[in-house]
Amino acid sequence: MGSATIFFWLQLPNVTKNYRTALTITGIVTLIATYHYIRIFNSWSEAFTVSSKDGGDYTVQLTGAPFNDGYRYVDWLLTVPLLLIELILVMKLPQAETVSLSWKLGLASALMVALGYPGEIQEDLSVRWFWWCLSMIPFCYVVFTLAVGLAEATSKQPSPAAASLASAARYLTVLSWCTYPFVYMVKSVGLAGPAATMYEQVGYSLADVLAKAVFGVLIWAIAAEKSAVEEGGKLLPN
Amino acid sequence: MGSATIFFWLQLPNVTKNYRTALTITGIVTLIATYHYIRIFNSWSEAFTVSSKDGGDYTVQLTGAPFNDGYRYVDWLLTVPLLLIELILVMKLPQAETVSLSWKLGLASALMVALGYPGEIQEDLSVRWFWWCLSMIPFCYVVFTLAVGLAEATSKQPSPAAASLASAARYLTVLSWCTYPFVYMVKSVGLAGPAATMYEQVGYSLADVLAKAVFGVLIWAIAAEKSAVEEGGKLLPN
Repeated sequence: MGSATIFFWLQLPNVTKNYRTALTITGIVTLIATYHYIRIFNSWSEAFTVSSKDGGDYTVQLTGAPFNDGYRYVDWLLTVPLLLIELILVMKLPQAETVSLSWKLGLASALMVALGYPGEIQEDLSVRWFWWCLSMIPFCYVVFTLAVGLAEATSKQPSPAAASLASAARYLTVLSWCTYPFVYMVKSVGLAGPAATMYEQVGYSLADVLAKAVFGVLIWAIAAEKSAVEEGGKLLPN
Repeated sequence: MGSATIFFWLQLPNVTKNYRTALTITGIVTLIATYHYIRIFNSWSEAFTVSSKDGGDYTVQLTGAPFNDGYRYVDWLLTVPLLLIELILVMKLPQAETVSLSWKLGLASALMVALGYPGEIQEDLSVRWFWWCLSMIPFCYVVFTLAVGLAEATSKQPSPAAASLASAARYLTVLSWCTYPFVYMVKSVGLAGPAATMYEQVGYSLADVLAKAVFGVLIWAIAAEKSAVEEGGKLLPN
């Protein structure tokens, strides 16, 4: 995540001014994620002790300190609206549409994260499902808007390469986003204990890498391709 | 590794735009390695205690905390595909070939690392050999593609100096890569205990310095030479 941030920011001079805000935000998203993953790493290390006696098999024990998954939700509350804004900015829609889409998708996605958290920290399965359902309302709105609404914007991109990259970014968003509600369900279907927590953490982490770093590389590729078109070139600069 | 990163990034303004992405990625590879070597250092320090009684000889004892070699594999999973991509980018092949080679070599090398790990954490020698053999399939594919496929690209470099540097980078890759399967075998031939772990760590670390920092210097030299040719000069910029 941190490397992705540096990559995006070092590429700022290589794109035209039109795409620098999008690329700046792309790097901010992965920076915020870097910070929270360090917090998550430390919280994880403090919650478990791995040790062996006399060189034998390793065992894992709870230290009593909590593993705080709240960092993840604070991360999402900040990064998910920013992710959507970077996608909207790189599309270079008319200004009024950019502002209105940013507000609508930004607020809906923040609401989605906020509604997910009360369920995530619940042991009671029916309460988990209740918040999952509530959270899915803004989720469906955002995914629907991206899949359908941005299809039109994609077709207006200035070159076939830019249109195909924009379309890839749109589908990667839908695909990586749909991972989250399924990972959330790991504990809702009755799995519990350290194994369930581990699967959940691996699932969320993989989805985050796709939705933030890999998605960011696509945003950069779109910005670079459109910059090359604007400058009269034909190829992606290397 | 960290110093190499700083060197590559400070050289960014000295190469033309065509090679900045390659040089940016070269610095990211050594940055990711820096991060993981710090984690490896800390894990190593936590796993062993070195002390002496009353100023006598030093003895090494296990603390019970595990030495986590997983950091090395996570590092490779990220850096090995990036290493190959920096080599492909600096060759400046036609765009379609750049994209297709990056995907093929990137995925094959990630698969190679992923298949090596299950054997690395095994005590059972036959299981170690099983994963070693599986991992060697994508390994041979990548090394063969580099040795043969890129020979053609090397001959198309814009100056004799660039061609000879590109050829050196290609052979350094093959040479440093071939070190890894031999180091992996240290434990597979029945050596065990702290001495085997030490030889393995020294071997992997040396191979990493060759494959990342020294290789990166060659990538930079190629980028600088080709930039000078493009700008109509004849000498490597200092």
